[in-house]
Amino acid sequence: MSRTNRRIVYAKVPDGTPTEDCFALESAPVETPTDGQMLIRNLFLSVDPYIRMRMERKDSYAPVMKLGDTMVGRTVGVIVASNSADWAPGTHVVGRLGWQDYSVATPGEIERIDVEKAPATTYLGALGSTGVTAWVGLTEFGKPQASETVLVSAAGGAVGSVVGQLARRHGCRVVGIAGGPEKCELVKSEYRFDECVDYKAADFPEQLKKAAGEGFDIYFDNVGGPILDAVLPLMRKFGRIPLCGLVSQYNATEPYGVKNLREVFNQRLTMRGFVLSDHKDLTAKAVAELQQAYAEGDLVHKETITDGLENAPKAFIGMLEGASVGKQMVRISDGEDAR
Amino acid sequence: MSRTNRRIVYAKVPDGTPTEDCFALESAPVETPTDGQMLIRNLFLSVDPYIRMRMERKDSYAPVMKLGDTMVGRTVGVIVASNSADWAPGTHVVGRLGWQDYSVATPGEIERIDVEKAPATTYLGALGSTGVTAWVGLTEFGKPQASETVLVSAAGGAVGSVVGQLARRHGCRVVGIAGGPEKCELVKSEYRFDECVDYKAADFPEQLKKAAGEGFDIYFDNVGGPILDAVLPLMRKFGRIPLCGLVSQYNATEPYGVKNLREVFNQRLTMRGFVLSDHKDLTAKAVAELQQAYAEGDLVHKETITDGLENAPKAFIGMLEGASVGKQMVRISDGEDAR
Repeated sequence: MSRTNRRIVYAKVPDGTPTEDCFALESAPVETPTDGQMLIRNLFLSVDPYIRMRMERKDSYAPVMKLGDTMVGRTVGVIVASNSADWAPGTHVVGRLGWQDYSVATPGEIERIDVEKAPATTYLGALGSTGVTAWVGLTEFGKPQASETVLVSAAGGAVGSVVGQLARRHGCRVVGIAGGPEKCELVKSEYRFDECVDYKAADFPEQLKKAAGEGFDIYFDNVGGPILDAVLPLMRKFGRIPLCGLVSQYNATEPYGVKNLREVFNQRLTMRGFVLSDHKDLTAKAVAELQQAYAEGDLVHKETITDGLENAPKAFIGMLEGASVGKQMVRISDGEDAR
Repeated sequence: MSRTNRRIVYAKVPDGTPTEDCFALESAPVETPTDGQMLIRNLFLSVDPYIRMRMERKDSYAPVMKLGDTMVGRTVGVIVASNSADWAPGTHVVGRLGWQDYSVATPGEIERIDVEKAPATTYLGALGSTGVTAWVGLTEFGKPQASETVLVSAAGGAVGSVVGQLARRHGCRVVGIAGGPEKCELVKSEYRFDECVDYKAADFPEQLKKAAGEGFDIYFDNVGGPILDAVLPLMRKFGRIPLCGLVSQYNATEPYGVKNLREVFNQRLTMRGFVLSDHKDLTAKAVAELQQAYAEGDLVHKETITDGLENAPKAFIGMLEGASVGKQMVRISDGEDAR
């Protein structure tokens, strides 16, 4: 059977917010897996903020992609052909297999997932690297203590929503920041944050101050920029700021200047940038705790699914602009053609 | 004997750089110590950047002073009268006794110093809280490892000069930042930094980049503002930034916006504000190591001494503007009248 692989490649360096011409759809015959390799039919693609950083002119936390490269991204898929005895066709896997219909991979590049235990897409979200990112930032660098107040930006997003739910399990009061009253409502009703403040509201600073109460002990920051500036004067002494990303800055052509760093000194704060790939040693513990929380009904995973690989650029751009609720994913295939 | 106590009080909140009318000299008869108290003749006063923060409109790391208060500051002095059996007249002490000729103090407010071991002024500098501040920031939050590169701002200042000398004892390569070629020369020749970059030079960014080599592992920051912004892109992965102060910002009417915080994420940096008073548990260890370094000739203490309590405001303002070399002090008395 001759199959065609459609893939989306990196076509142009964006200035500010990426536009659709930064991506191009290409087609080619599917590669044949060689010794020890497998052919995987990708089912779902996860589009995440970090990908924007790989589209810069210069390296950031990781090297930038080269023009013509297949866009990077994590997928769940199913093995359709295998030259590895341990990996049977039909096995569901997750890996960084890119924006494409089919991927050829070695066993080191993929992990098995149990689609009986939780839906496949969950392994790209709350039970996958998104959830592990939330876990590492909160527990390793936030160090939450019962009855502390935890603030989370992009609280309706994939990572933020997990952070809030985990913080709640630590006995913390949890405050979110999200864009628009509907998203804020969802953060409270679905993810059960105690409060959520709308950063688009005219009285955002006042609302945030009110929500702070005696101040925030932890600010799990996904956005950076002006929101970080607004939060800094509301931090309590010895507060921790795990810096998971700066999504407000990825599309900014001119970086925002943060004025309130004086508070880092005044309040003896710790600000710590972190990237998941540095903490592989924590993955097993994180996954176990996430699965436990999920099994106990304490970890709600929500997703926005866009249909069709060809619509991945649109989904990615929308996610960067805050259009998604929960984890933004792209359905590449329903898996029918993988049987 | 009736003595007069001159004291300098806080007279006006400064806008930007303090001016001499922010201070007023007052005179009154010396208070008589009561049970358990001592009368101390102050000999030297230390004027330090943190005092500027106590002159703000709102509290920062510590409460602001009230107008009319005696200016805060550490002094070394000698006991002239004592109602405490353990503290004999003639004993040299150090304490936060303020900008004044005489202070009445209880034993809990002062510590003995050994003026045979090192000159009295040293206990306001390298062997005093200045040195302990340097030690705590560098060892506790910088965590220096042999062969790492350590950058220190305000390297010619009281804290910075000690940081560099301690870092050298850890086997680090030490780079300073100071204002003007003469100060830079002194930082290299007297404090034995490997390199020193002049932030006033037109090609400061290029010079700093060159001095960075493969990047800075630790940036001991005393200044904040634009210099911090210039340093951030030169930090190495997992770098540490102990934030000891933001002297560039104390006199700023409009705070500087730091644009390169993205590097905290990219390079997984840890930025940590600290204040000495939180770390009393480390003092004994710090003092022991500082005395050891001093005894071994590895800790050069330099000072700029201004004569006369009445000139303390001038000395303080000059220090804030970078005019001092080493520790800025004010000679209040030669001690003749304390005998």
